[in-house]
Amino acid sequence: MSLTGVIPPVCTPLTPEYEVDAASLVRLVDHLLAGGVDALFVLGSSSEVAYLTDAQRRVVLDTVVGHVAGQVPVLAGVIDMTTPRVLEHVRSAVAAGASGLVATAPFYTRTHPEEIRTHFRTIAARGGLPLYAYDLPVSVHTKLPAELLLELAAEGALAGVKDSSGDDGALRRVILGRQRGQGTPFSVLTGSEVTVDSALWMGADGVVPGLGNVDPHGYVQLYRSAERGDWEAARAEQERLVRLFEIVRVGGARMGGSSAGLGAFKAALHLRGVIDCPLTALPQIPLDDDETGRVGKLLAAAGLL
Amino acid sequence: MSLTGVIPPVCTPLTPEYEVDAASLVRLVDHLLAGGVDALFVLGSSSEVAYLTDAQRRVVLDTVVGHVAGQVPVLAGVIDMTTPRVLEHVRSAVAAGASGLVATAPFYTRTHPEEIRTHFRTIAARGGLPLYAYDLPVSVHTKLPAELLLELAAEGALAGVKDSSGDDGALRRVILGRQRGQGTPFSVLTGSEVTVDSALWMGADGVVPGLGNVDPHGYVQLYRSAERGDWEAARAEQERLVRLFEIVRVGGARMGGSSAGLGAFKAALHLRGVIDCPLTALPQIPLDDDETGRVGKLLAAAGLL
Amino acid sequence: MSLTGVIPPVCTPLTPEYEVDAASLVRLVDHLLAGGVDALFVLGSSSEVAYLTDAQRRVVLDTVVGHVAGQVPVLAGVIDMTTPRVLEHVRSAVAAGASGLVATAPFYTRTHPEEIRTHFRTIAARGGLPLYAYDLPVSVHTKLPAELLLELAAEGALAGVKDSSGDDGALRRVILGRQRGQGTPFSVLTGSEVTVDSALWMGADGVVPGLGNVDPHGYVQLYRSAERGDWEAARAEQERLVRLFEIVRVGGARMGGSSAGLGAFKAALHLRGVIDCPLTALPQIPLDDDETGRVGKLLAAAGLL
Amino acid sequence: MSLTGVIPPVCTPLTPEYEVDAASLVRLVDHLLAGGVDALFVLGSSSEVAYLTDAQRRVVLDTVVGHVAGQVPVLAGVIDMTTPRVLEHVRSAVAAGASGLVATAPFYTRTHPEEIRTHFRTIAARGGLPLYAYDLPVSVHTKLPAELLLELAAEGALAGVKDSSGDDGALRRVILGRQRGQGTPFSVLTGSEVTVDSALWMGADGVVPGLGNVDPHGYVQLYRSAERGDWEAARAEQERLVRLFEIVRVGGARMGGSSAGLGAFKAALHLRGVIDCPLTALPQIPLDDDETGRVGKLLAAAGLL
Repeated sequence: MSLTGVIPPVCTPLTPEYEVDAASLVRLVDHLLAGGVDALFVLGSSSEVAYLTDAQRRVVLDTVVGHVAGQVPVLAGVIDMTTPRVLEHVRSAVAAGASGLVATAPFYTRTHPEEIRTHFRTIAARGGLPLYAYDLPVSVHTKLPAELLLELAAEGALAGVKDSSGDDGALRRVILGRQRGQGTPFSVLTGSEVTVDSALWMGADGVVPGLGNVDPHGYVQLYRSAERGDWEAARAEQERLVRLFEIVRVGGARMGGSSAGLGAFKAALHLRGVIDCPLTALPQIPLDDDETGRVGKLLAAAGLL
Repeated sequence: MSLTGVIPPVCTPLTPEYEVDAASLVRLVDHLLAGGVDALFVLGSSSEVAYLTDAQRRVVLDTVVGHVAGQVPVLAGVIDMTTPRVLEHVRSAVAAGASGLVATAPFYTRTHPEEIRTHFRTIAARGGLPLYAYDLPVSVHTKLPAELLLELAAEGALAGVKDSSGDDGALRRVILGRQRGQGTPFSVLTGSEVTVDSALWMGADGVVPGLGNVDPHGYVQLYRSAERGDWEAARAEQERLVRLFEIVRVGGARMGGSSAGLGAFKAALHLRGVIDCPLTALPQIPLDDDETGRVGKLLAAAGLL
Repeated sequence: MSLTGVIPPVCTPLTPEYEVDAASLVRLVDHLLAGGVDALFVLGSSSEVAYLTDAQRRVVLDTVVGHVAGQVPVLAGVIDMTTPRVLEHVRSAVAAGASGLVATAPFYTRTHPEEIRTHFRTIAARGGLPLYAYDLPVSVHTKLPAELLLELAAEGALAGVKDSSGDDGALRRVILGRQRGQGTPFSVLTGSEVTVDSALWMGADGVVPGLGNVDPHGYVQLYRSAERGDWEAARAEQERLVRLFEIVRVGGARMGGSSAGLGAFKAALHLRGVIDCPLTALPQIPLDDDETGRVGKLLAAAGLL
Repeated sequence: MSLTGVIPPVCTPLTPEYEVDAASLVRLVDHLLAGGVDALFVLGSSSEVAYLTDAQRRVVLDTVVGHVAGQVPVLAGVIDMTTPRVLEHVRSAVAAGASGLVATAPFYTRTHPEEIRTHFRTIAARGGLPLYAYDLPVSVHTKLPAELLLELAAEGALAGVKDSSGDDGALRRVILGRQRGQGTPFSVLTGSEVTVDSALWMGADGVVPGLGNVDPHGYVQLYRSAERGDWEAARAEQERLVRLFEIVRVGGARMGGSSAGLGAFKAALHLRGVIDCPLTALPQIPLDDDETGRVGKLLAAAGLL
């Protein structure tokens, strides 16, 4: 069965002591389920996976898989530098009962397409769960080639791709290149919050929107509209979400892009009453009061406050 | 006391089952100590730290710190994406009895100089051991600015830098910018195998050469010659080592740079009889017989076989 | 009046002696006009502008502007490293009777948004013709920020943008950010051959497709379908063109991307009988017979041979 | 005869109307010759070649070649995007009586080592003058591979390289890789102002320092000291020049690197009374009074005011 629909990459609320706030996390999951999402993706970039210790990652996995209790699939990110370290996370994800795995190409090391192929094949073989490739050049500094994705799809090593490259031309090559109806299905999911209607129009199967933490209902509306062929409604909803997405720019040049983006999502979740504390993990720079105020105004303009 | 001299980043020999080969690792440490090195650096890039699981990292630490037993300082790499994950490795390194810590800037996340500052300050404060910044843009995709290094040196957060950026102009700015004789010393160590004589000439304190695994004696000769002012001898030795360093190019374009470099170091250590098995961790591509033969010829030409 | 529709960046046929083949160029222009295009863009990247001498650029301008004789607007690329050199090309374009100008940000130099602002303002003030910003990070190594484009649009310095960045999220920010109905219109034109239907769906005004040299009729069909709201037809046509676009990959890794892309366009135009000689300028590598044969097969599959 | 010694890349003084100030240029040439330089390099990056029109480039060439009148060799930059455009500049340089040519790899286009090889071979064959490769990845976005340089050196296509890559490890590979005493000599010239002593120590033949405009005497002292084996004196002089080089950082983040560097050189030349006007070409941002004051303080600290 192919993965489709809205699959938000769940944020990880923290306590003021920088520990996982399980109560807030459960509320966030309920908020997402109430929004009608089709699956959840924990331990992705939006979860601050790069900042969570292995123990914290396990708390997230156990909390979410336990609370969801099979209502929707829960994908688990297994983000680390190379195959052996990724396999450790695979073990935890399988033990926690995840429904699927999401892995990037190797990073930190100087890699090669042949090595990326071995990497995904090994994870697929050892994991025993559907494996999704995570294409995130801004973090991994490699763009997954369409040919490699299609080859790994054809042999059944990959069940899909989460494309956060922002390169919708390459996305389309993958969509048109896969052979539908032959063997395993291959899900193409866009991670780009602002071109979801057009990605679905091209044939993508779903979306993994960080902004979906803040407005799951909006993305579900967008997806359902597209599904029933009401593209005008999908576009109108997408354009509202494009304007809302400006929250990630509020932090501006005084901090890194991760601080600005994740800080904005958490500020919005806090302002909406979903989580107790908007803190992001170290060494990220927090939004200040003025910036939080501007997030609030954008929320209000989008009808969310 | 400032760190000086030759501090090789110790390779991690593996068994055919991809586990740490502790017996070979001990032999490698003895080979390095016999070569006269001044300290050891475990869990750096040359150790395949990016490929080692946390458990394997602990085996390396315990094996080396235990075997060295205080004869020379042992620095420990604490390589991970962000502060909280790095702090986990710090804990292990401190527990194992490491003499100092080596950390990069955050990677995978989109970071900012202010965040890098917080990152190093936090690690220094929590670690309680001398902290060395590891400047490795090819892996981390950030170049540590000279100003930031000097500021962190002045406040005592950093005890030194291992500069593997290949940018010797920037290295010189740091060397000339540090204020000698005021407060904590700040060690400038080059990680560039092929410009050691010139880095020492500029005032660097030492070298962390991956190639020093293969020929520790050569780098020690180079350093001692420079120390006693015999720069002609230092250059002659350096030029021999530049020719030997061609082993890292034998793997060529059919594999990633990490596979080619680390594979060559291990092939050479195997050919020299120091380690039992030249295997590198997954998903690296191994050198084939022809490539190993060419490594052997370069070893022979350098007088090492 | 805002620029809309299909505006192919006209290739520059060469003689076997590497001179502009004016007769073939006239035939190519007729082929494009017969295809129903709305305007022409000469001296863009697809014209090999980077390879043409100033004298050759003038031949292209004079030939095309003269032959078109006002049937459609003719935009002229004024591609050079910095403002003073661009202004020389502006002079030629104005003298030749071009309808508008297309300029990139400065390149080769290490530039800054403030400098890019001055650059476009100066060209607009001196040129006296509508000025379009050309966003081509793969060549210019700078991405034009949406804010800067919108600011220059609001003040009337820019009449539009040709976006060849492949970043359709950023494209959408510009589309939604411009203030329609206030002052000068601002045309958003995509340069991405494979996402034209979706760019139009988002609100783009037109397309500047290199592949439109080969199949102008296809892009005109696509555009007209979208214009009358038949998005299914637009998508079907786009998908045919996505498959045809594979011709740019035939040259593969044995040559640069410019050689492969421009060589494929010219091979196709030669196979279709539009131009006399498929030669590309030095130092580009020509397609060999096998590669040309594969271009032919893709043309046939697209119904063009 | 191989090119050696100090070869400053001559700045191009401008009038307040942005035209070449030939009188100031002549004074600058005299200032350099009085400093004892071995050759001159006009129309390099430090000359603002990227900003000069072709007519201005010719004024520079004619002024300098005419004034120097054979006292020292005058190399001419032939900087443009591709072979045919470079060949136009070659024609002008040859006509003006230049002693040698300096060319980069193709830029703006997406190129390939095979194309770079054809590019240099064609320029060498057509130019009939010694050709020097200009390795400037910060502008050209390609690093010239050592193997390619050595191959072109061996076949006589290249007479040398000006290495402004800052990668002194790669520089050393070229130095050690060339075959001395066989056929044409191959000059290795560093363009890095702050590692001249060490480059000479490695075997480089000379230096092309932008900062040499400001302090030609200093670089000549450095070179002569190294030449006679007084490396301590060379280093002391180099360290003084490293401190002086801080002038290029005065402009900081409010402008591009070219504005900051070239603006500082010109401000210093103006403060030293060599040129009439410190203006840089558009769209560069000028240094303000405060910044100019800081340049003056650094000049004074270096004993130049």
